[in-house]
Amino acid sequence: RLFFFFTSGMHFAVLIFASVATMTAFALDNGLMRTPPMGWLAWERFRCDIDCTNDPKNCISENLFIDMADRLYEDGWKELGYVYVNIDDCWSSMDRDKDGRLQADPKRFPGGINKLARYMHDRGLKLGIYGDMGTHTCGGYPGTTVDKIEIDAQTFADWEVDMLKFDGCYSNAVEQELGYPLMSKALNATGRPIAYSCSWPAYQGGLPPKVNYTQLGQICNLWRNYGDIQDSWGSVLSIADWFFENQDVLAPAAGPGRWNDPDMLVIGDFGLSMDQSRSQMALWAIMAAPLFMSNDLRTISSGARSILQNKMIISINQDPLGIQGRRILKEKSGIEVFWRPLSNNASALVFFSRRTDMPYRYETSLSKLNYTTGSYKVTDVYTDQIDVLKDSTEFVVSVNPTGVVMWYVSAPGKLQYHQIIRGDKLRRHKYDAKQNNFL
Amino acid sequence: RLFFFFTSGMHFAVLIFASVATMTAFALDNGLMRTPPMGWLAWERFRCDIDCTNDPKNCISENLFIDMADRLYEDGWKELGYVYVNIDDCWSSMDRDKDGRLQADPKRFPGGINKLARYMHDRGLKLGIYGDMGTHTCGGYPGTTVDKIEIDAQTFADWEVDMLKFDGCYSNAVEQELGYPLMSKALNATGRPIAYSCSWPAYQGGLPPKVNYTQLGQICNLWRNYGDIQDSWGSVLSIADWFFENQDVLAPAAGPGRWNDPDMLVIGDFGLSMDQSRSQMALWAIMAAPLFMSNDLRTISSGARSILQNKMIISINQDPLGIQGRRILKEKSGIEVFWRPLSNNASALVFFSRRTDMPYRYETSLSKLNYTTGSYKVTDVYTDQIDVLKDSTEFVVSVNPTGVVMWYVSAPGKLQYHQIIRGDKLRRHKYDAKQNNFL
Repeated sequence: RLFFFFTSGMHFAVLIFASVATMTAFALDNGLMRTPPMGWLAWERFRCDIDCTNDPKNCISENLFIDMADRLYEDGWKELGYVYVNIDDCWSSMDRDKDGRLQADPKRFPGGINKLARYMHDRGLKLGIYGDMGTHTCGGYPGTTVDKIEIDAQTFADWEVDMLKFDGCYSNAVEQELGYPLMSKALNATGRPIAYSCSWPAYQGGLPPKVNYTQLGQICNLWRNYGDIQDSWGSVLSIADWFFENQDVLAPAAGPGRWNDPDMLVIGDFGLSMDQSRSQMALWAIMAAPLFMSNDLRTISSGARSILQNKMIISINQDPLGIQGRRILKEKSGIEVFWRPLSNNASALVFFSRRTDMPYRYETSLSKLNYTTGSYKVTDVYTDQIDVLKDSTEFVVSVNPTGVVMWYVSAPGKLQYHQIIRGDKLRRHKYDAKQNNFL
Repeated sequence: RLFFFFTSGMHFAVLIFASVATMTAFALDNGLMRTPPMGWLAWERFRCDIDCTNDPKNCISENLFIDMADRLYEDGWKELGYVYVNIDDCWSSMDRDKDGRLQADPKRFPGGINKLARYMHDRGLKLGIYGDMGTHTCGGYPGTTVDKIEIDAQTFADWEVDMLKFDGCYSNAVEQELGYPLMSKALNATGRPIAYSCSWPAYQGGLPPKVNYTQLGQICNLWRNYGDIQDSWGSVLSIADWFFENQDVLAPAAGPGRWNDPDMLVIGDFGLSMDQSRSQMALWAIMAAPLFMSNDLRTISSGARSILQNKMIISINQDPLGIQGRRILKEKSGIEVFWRPLSNNASALVFFSRRTDMPYRYETSLSKLNYTTGSYKVTDVYTDQIDVLKDSTEFVVSVNPTGVVMWYVSAPGKLQYHQIIRGDKLRRHKYDAKQNNFL
């Protein structure tokens, strides 16, 4: 392996040459995130609130992350897999220390980041931190220019941090193409397993040829492909639409250790109805998306909590095959059907309604949804109702406006997994199993 | 008074002449709806579902209205003022009877409308029905052409109906200008008090010069100014925006017996979060809007119910002065402030956030909101928290994304009502009390 040490005076062209030369040979092999990561991330809900004088319970401070860690630890979240407690922007001091290292804001994080990491580790949780490939973070705090990548990676490792979200404000495409792979390398070189979340593709439009998903899978554990989520159904829907419209490009990029990230869950906040919350959870599970909640776990409603703590949906999201699901049908009625193949000859189906009038009675059969001949056990993941359906049985699902019906479909008896996804009854949408390249 | 009797063969020009000649002289004086009507209306939630075979609990049938009446009667709604049980489109047979009268679909309403009316009256409730000024209703059922106005009005009266919503599909502006006043007259002529809801202005863009609000106040008890509401926050917000953007035209039109109708409450359905539900209720109360819920009272959540049954908001909506409130501030931050003057020297304030990020801490004072010098008792209508504020006291309200904080502001002691609305501290927005012409 090559080892880079950059000083701020080093010539840029040299960096680019060195980076391009090693990029394809280098593969991320940190063993992390074999299933999509789960946890909590500060940004969507708490943004850059640094006013600890007037808003002490909500400002970005060690108290906020300790509060959320306590909730994850005491309220049943950790056991379900929600283990990351992730800091986002606005955590640092406005200045690096005398040795050029990032440092936490001394008033808001008097114990420093390392103390926070130990607090997490003592409880079986993990700490994530935020940096930015560029001169400044999006919030205007010190960024990580190329010459600072090594020292910042080492700082995060010294602090015993478990994950880095590396944003891309205040850098251009050339700097990003250089910096994102270098940070991957630098994190690896520390010897500490640090999961690596890259905002890079989101800054380059999220699609080839500007974005190289093969490379991303080699250097990042997850990556933000698209814009930031907001606390509104319009935002959730526009994100889901973009990911499923581009599923032919995106789904093959995902797999154990490398995930598309449609951004945080806003379930438990202010903008989604219960049905819309169930929809976000279902669609994120179909997408094999990271499940980072951004909400206030101290005051979350029991309704939102029960959606986020739904064991069957979590197990679908966390399926070890790690195959990102797809939209397989778009009906004129506004009903859409999503499907994800799972281990143990199983699969997940989501019936989603774009309508805004009333529950829609959607009639179909499993064979119309590309399932092969046979009987299937279907479990409604939100109601726990179980049915056995023949492939030819016409059934009706009543789908609420902006809501979902989600099924875990298992194939008892002699049905084989490959029969389901390679069945010869593929009608309206041809599913090419080879696009998921680990099949 | 002139009395018209129309046959279908009568010449159109004669009708127009007669109508125009009497229009301005005729004033609605049925004594009804001195405060905005409250109740339940089938359309938004149940639409034109006539499939009683497959969907017996939700189809438009007498059972649905009996179910809702039972809920209004037994679950505390009636005592709060929700007394109307209103049928919308798709209730009738596809054909008139041999005498040319409308008749209910015999399978779905085997007891007929009169039986339903008596069911309501036995419980202290009222029954509303739906007709359409035009050849057909919007759903394709028999409409009320000009020659049928008299007979249909008499039919509704014979059935002991208490309210008519008169839609405007399949008619042109000339026919509407003729038909809406004639129906008002025909209803009055039956001798039965029948409240009259006119969809007319919604079909003519809702604004002068096409719409004459002076005339509407003389012939209708309420009128739909704008498009149909859907079960989404986007729809609720676009409606509220239209009404407040046009408040200088609309607010003066409202008063006891004559109300602008921004359409149904969709609280308790599928598309609104709890914060958005609180916002619809608050803004509809500020607007002195009719409160027709369109939801399933058999399965409504306790959260939605508590919003709809909030006594203080209902009393604000039902304030006897009947003054429609206004938006008094639009801040760059996305915060908007609404205000409605109330009886007993009181007023209502709503702080609303258009933001989709996190709760916003809005700092202001009552004097900045045009209140005159003095002390005020403010009651948060959703939390019941009470404070006493001086006009000059700077305070902070934390407003959730797409949510509201709503206050009932009463002015104890020597403050007079006219001082509040005519105070000389009007700064950012001049409120012209004369526009509410009953002051």
